[in-house]
Amino acid sequence: MNILMIGAGNVAWHLATALEQKGNHISVVYSRHLDNAQLLAQQLNNALATNHTNFSEVGADLAIVAVKDDAIAPLVAQMQLPPQTIIAHTSGNTPLQVFEHLNGNNDFGVFYPLQTFSKNSPVDFTAIPFCIEGINANTETILFDLASQLSPNIHSINSFERKVLHVAAVIACNFTNHLFAQSAHILQREDISFDLLKPLIQETIQKALNNDPRETQTGPAVRNDTKVIQDHLQYLKNNPSANALYTSLTDSILQWYT
Amino acid sequence: MNILMIGAGNVAWHLATALEQKGNHISVVYSRHLDNAQLLAQQLNNALATNHTNFSEVGADLAIVAVKDDAIAPLVAQMQLPPQTIIAHTSGNTPLQVFEHLNGNNDFGVFYPLQTFSKNSPVDFTAIPFCIEGINANTETILFDLASQLSPNIHSINSFERKVLHVAAVIACNFTNHLFAQSAHILQREDISFDLLKPLIQETIQKALNNDPRETQTGPAVRNDTKVIQDHLQYLKNNPSANALYTSLTDSILQWYT
Repeated sequence: MNILMIGAGNVAWHLATALEQKGNHISVVYSRHLDNAQLLAQQLNNALATNHTNFSEVGADLAIVAVKDDAIAPLVAQMQLPPQTIIAHTSGNTPLQVFEHLNGNNDFGVFYPLQTFSKNSPVDFTAIPFCIEGINANTETILFDLASQLSPNIHSINSFERKVLHVAAVIACNFTNHLFAQSAHILQREDISFDLLKPLIQETIQKALNNDPRETQTGPAVRNDTKVIQDHLQYLKNNPSANALYTSLTDSILQWYT
Repeated sequence: MNILMIGAGNVAWHLATALEQKGNHISVVYSRHLDNAQLLAQQLNNALATNHTNFSEVGADLAIVAVKDDAIAPLVAQMQLPPQTIIAHTSGNTPLQVFEHLNGNNDFGVFYPLQTFSKNSPVDFTAIPFCIEGINANTETILFDLASQLSPNIHSINSFERKVLHVAAVIACNFTNHLFAQSAHILQREDISFDLLKPLIQETIQKALNNDPRETQTGPAVRNDTKVIQDHLQYLKNNPSANALYTSLTDSILQWYT
């Protein structure tokens, strides 16, 4: 497949190199900053780097838009595409409707790898779920087939479901990270290494993910152990941020289980 | 070392078998329920099972108290020990002072493996930090040496530090588990599998634990992305429990980073 890569960030970088390894050709890499486009193009077989958004003369079956969420709509509005090129973005947040302001009549869809990508750390696409959405069945099939080259884990997910996944991901990932940060901060205040807790964290998370996390809940709140809870809040009285979180998470667990 | 194992639950089970494998002898297993003591004793080389608390005639260098937190003080009050036997509990919550009501003048300490144990799932003690506390240097050395047989990861942790570790563990483990449960519940309401999120959760957690979690924070709150936050809260308006958590965790992240 002949692919136009719009964006040269983490997602574009990993997708472009992985798709070329599967026999596709990235004909053009676009970035607002030509330098970035050139950096990625150098990793590829004969890709042209550009910072212009008129692609009407480019031969491409598919344009993949892998840029920040709030950059998608403005880019889509100014972009010129050949009439047969399908366009798809890689975002978890942005609904399919962002493509309604396309200049042409191109088919469009979503090609969303549900993962967090970092520069310089290798990506195992076979472990990554792809969430696919298409404006019609033909587009959806084409995007499905392309994703199948990278991963056996492909799902048809509409824009509403993708938003729900995003809410759930924020709660399970971003908020979890913040709890680790709060925990590390508490230990640092007393000069205790966060490393001490890591084996316990790993084991707790494996248990939660290998079972139903609603069944693996432990700790003072699920036992309604008022004495320990009061003890902990007393210790946290000079740490209002951790104290507030401790209270709201304990209340939430008490509401669920007692 | 000749060891008296007080308790026959998960911790006692894994500790007793691991300590015998290292050449120690468990002479007696005590449990309030004789059946439980017998079950564990059968796994050991020539251990006596009992539900009596007079151990004054038992030959033992060390008594390990591996029972529930609120059972430690009543047991300690009724127990009779030989005068040379050191006594240590395995609890993260209970302070050293629980041993001040011992009948004799035995030395005492804490022998706390910082991990969560499940029946029937094997334990790799070499990955588990041990937190040691002793009423005097001699006791601490003896407990340190015993823990060294099982793990290279031994720390001298006093009762105050152990309480801080427990607060930090509740935040990093019990609360994290509850966030997974909330996330799984949100997806279930829309008939989306929690499995879809697991690769993202695994990657997020590895990133947080391999770096400083304060540096790996991502998501709408740390970007102060008001539009996405309002969108998510709007979606959660019929889920008061998740809505309240979303608000308090978002507030906490905003306070830390913006």
